[in-house]
Amino acid sequence: MAVGVHIIADLYGVDARLISSSEAISPIMENAIQEGHLTKISSEYYQFRPMGASGIALLAESHLSFHTWPEYGLVTLDIYTCGDRSNADRAFDYIIKVLRPTSVDYHKMERGSQIKEDVRITDPQMML
Amino acid sequence: MAVGVHIIADLYGVDARLISSSEAISPIMENAIQEGHLTKISSEYYQFRPMGASGIALLAESHLSFHTWPEYGLVTLDIYTCGDRSNADRAFDYIIKVLRPTSVDYHKMERGSQIKEDVRITDPQMML
Repeated sequence: MAVGVHIIADLYGVDARLISSSEAISPIMENAIQEGHLTKISSEYYQFRPMGASGIALLAESHLSFHTWPEYGLVTLDIYTCGDRSNADRAFDYIIKVLRPTSVDYHKMERGSQIKEDVRITDPQMML
Repeated sequence: MAVGVHIIADLYGVDARLISSSEAISPIMENAIQEGHLTKISSEYYQFRPMGASGIALLAESHLSFHTWPEYGLVTLDIYTCGDRSNADRAFDYIIKVLRPTSVDYHKMERGSQIKEDVRITDPQMML
């Protein structure tokens, strides 16, 4: 058993105009959250000068992050979700469809895969 | 060449009292950012019910995230930094010192390792 799945992907050959600004990446991230049926708690964007942007969304299912280097046509993307595993794939597929990278370095990791169900702590004092 | 380094670590056997609430994890994350000489743009925390918390910090150097499952003594931790690579290690070492996990599933990945310096785009129209 694991608590979630984490897609770690570096996207190369992305059209720099799609990823130069926080205004450009924010609709892509927000739509990816919707396409993945994910639950946004908050999202934050940052514009680097002269170009490049970062975006990070805290999700009820974990997080999604986006860091861009338009000068290299590069996006480093993380989609980490608990719950329905196909949600991460759906969000990822949407981003690939929009950004159309020429190559992708893709990894998918199980997170928390060594938990032991039988040592689950249920001390009621822990509960808030 | 790569644009950054990403520590992906699942921490097991953590005392549940240290990770049950957003109030408990926020000083650990904020101190880790300081210990790693990292530059915080923003941070956000979320409390799950009955227990468990998430925290995510957008950094000028990328991001740091924390998701906890106190019922399993589990923290899934990501520290992704550009710039001085030893900063990620410093932040990580601090977190390990504070949380004292009994075991750690640790991965360190180079991000953007396939960029080609010689195809750097320098179109001034891209700059904001």
